[in-house]
Amino acid sequence: MRDFRHDLTVLALNTATLGHNIAGAGAGWAPERTIDACAERGIGGIVFWRREVAGRAAALGARARAAGVNVVGLCRAPFLVGPLAPRGAAEIRDDFRLAIDQAAELGAPVLTIVTGGVEAGTKGVRDSLNMVADRVAEILPHAAACGVRLALEPLHPVYAGDRSCLTTVRDALDLCDRIGAEHLGVAVDVYHVWWDTDLPAQLARAGRRIFGFHLCDWLATTTDVLLDRGMMGDGVADLRGLRAAVEDAGYAGFCEVEIFSVNNWWKRDPAEVLDVMVERFRSVC
Amino acid sequence: MRDFRHDLTVLALNTATLGHNIAGAGAGWAPERTIDACAERGIGGIVFWRREVAGRAAALGARARAAGVNVVGLCRAPFLVGPLAPRGAAEIRDDFRLAIDQAAELGAPVLTIVTGGVEAGTKGVRDSLNMVADRVAEILPHAAACGVRLALEPLHPVYAGDRSCLTTVRDALDLCDRIGAEHLGVAVDVYHVWWDTDLPAQLARAGRRIFGFHLCDWLATTTDVLLDRGMMGDGVADLRGLRAAVEDAGYAGFCEVEIFSVNNWWKRDPAEVLDVMVERFRSVC
Repeated sequence: MRDFRHDLTVLALNTATLGHNIAGAGAGWAPERTIDACAERGIGGIVFWRREVAGRAAALGARARAAGVNVVGLCRAPFLVGPLAPRGAAEIRDDFRLAIDQAAELGAPVLTIVTGGVEAGTKGVRDSLNMVADRVAEILPHAAACGVRLALEPLHPVYAGDRSCLTTVRDALDLCDRIGAEHLGVAVDVYHVWWDTDLPAQLARAGRRIFGFHLCDWLATTTDVLLDRGMMGDGVADLRGLRAAVEDAGYAGFCEVEIFSVNNWWKRDPAEVLDVMVERFRSVC
Repeated sequence: MRDFRHDLTVLALNTATLGHNIAGAGAGWAPERTIDACAERGIGGIVFWRREVAGRAAALGARARAAGVNVVGLCRAPFLVGPLAPRGAAEIRDDFRLAIDQAAELGAPVLTIVTGGVEAGTKGVRDSLNMVADRVAEILPHAAACGVRLALEPLHPVYAGDRSCLTTVRDALDLCDRIGAEHLGVAVDVYHVWWDTDLPAQLARAGRRIFGFHLCDWLATTTDVLLDRGMMGDGVADLRGLRAAVEDAGYAGFCEVEIFSVNNWWKRDPAEVLDVMVERFRSVC
C-alpha cells in the first residue's frame, strides 16, 4: 500500500466537502479561494461540480494547474433515468453532452455518472439499468472524441429508488462489460460500498477500470443518508482495507474526499475542514 | 407461481403492520383482537413480537390456532453484535435462549434473527459477522431441542452500521453454509433486498433454506428508512418477480406483510389497513 503519512500529492478535495451546495455554507468560498487553500496545504487534486465551473471551465482549470493543483474530475452527468432525471431523452442527451464538454474544457480526465433511480412505470432496477446502458453507450463516442473518461458510480442501495438504480461495483462492471469501451469505468466511493462483502472480489475484477476512489466514512448511527457523511475515522468503514483492495487491483490514482455534512462539517470554517481532512488522510486512510 | 386472487391461506400479518410498537398507534388493539380480525378476513397466519406475548405465549398461540390463524413466527432474537446489542455476551445468550423458549411456547416454528451492526472497536462488517456466526452456532442446539428454526434476516445496507452487519441473502447463506445446521435458514424481506441484482441467483442457491418471505414495498422517494415502508404496490420493488424467484427456489410458505409506517398506515384504522393489505395481496403481489 502507498504511504500517505508524508505525501499529499494524491489527496484530492471534492469541493462538496466544504459545503458548496447549500446557500450560505462553506463561508461562500469561490473556486479560486478553494484552489489556493488546497495549494497552500499541498493537496494535490481538486474535483469541481458543474455549477461552479459553468461558463468558465477552461479558465478555472488553468487556474488550478497554475497553482499546482490537478483537476481530477467533474461532478457529474445528469441523472439518466428515474424520477429526478430531466424530462425527456433529448434533454438528457443534450445535458450529458454538455457535461462532457465542460469536463473537456476544464481539463478534467473523468466525468462521474450517477445513474438515477427507478424509471416511472417500471418495477425493480433491471429495466432502468438497461436504459442506463443504452444512454451511456450512445454518448461514449462523444466522450472519446473529447478525451473524457466516464466513471459509473454505484451509490448506496438506500438511493436505489430515486438516485441510483446502480448500487454495486458488481453491477457497474456488468454494465462496463456489456457496453465495452476503454474509456468507461467505475468510481468507488467508500460511503456507498463499505458494507459489501463481495467488494474485494469485484475490485479485483475491475482492475484498471477503477477510475476514482472516494473517501469519507459511514457513521454507525447516521441521522441522514444524504447529508450526514462522516469524516474519515469517525465511522465504521474499513478505510485501510478498502484502499488496500483498490490498490491491489492496480489503482494508483487520487483519493478524493467527498463529505456531505449539513449539520457538522458544512457548518465549520472551510480552513478547519481542510486541516482535519489532511490530518485524517495521513492517520487513518 | 401460486395464485392468491382467491386464497388468503398463506397471507400472514406481522402485527407491526398495525403500529403495535408506538404508543397510541394501532388503536391499542390487543393481540386477541388482532387474531380475530385476521380470522374474520380469512388471513391464514400471524407473526407476533416478543413484547406482545411475554408471559402468555402458550395461551396466545392456542388462541390463534383456535381461531384458525397459524402462528407463523416470532420477532425476534436480540441483536447479537453492534451498538444496539445487550451489554455483555452472557446477557445476549440469555435473551437469545429466552426468545427461543418464547417461540416454542407460542408454537411459532421460526424465530427471526436480526444480527445487529458493527461491533465497537472494529471496522467493516467482517469481524461482526464472525461474532454473529459464533453466537448463532452456540445457541443452535437449544433451538433444535425446542423445535424452533432460526431465520437469519439480512437487512437493507442502510442499517449496516447499527442494526445489521448482515445485508444480503448471499452473506446470510454464507453464514448458513459455515455453521451448517438444518434448522438455520434465511428470511427474505423485499424491503431489504429488492435492489439486489444478485438476488435471484442467491435464492436459487438458498432452496429450502428460505424460512420466510416478507412483503411491503420500497417507496421511491422514501422519507425515513426505518418507519416509512410502503404498502405493496405503492413502491418500486418488483414484488411479482421477487415472489416468482422465491417460489422457483422451492418456497411454498407464508407471505408475511410487515409494514413500519409511522406517518401513514400506523395512523389509520387497523381494520382499514387489513382490508387494504388483503386487496393488495390479491392484486399486486
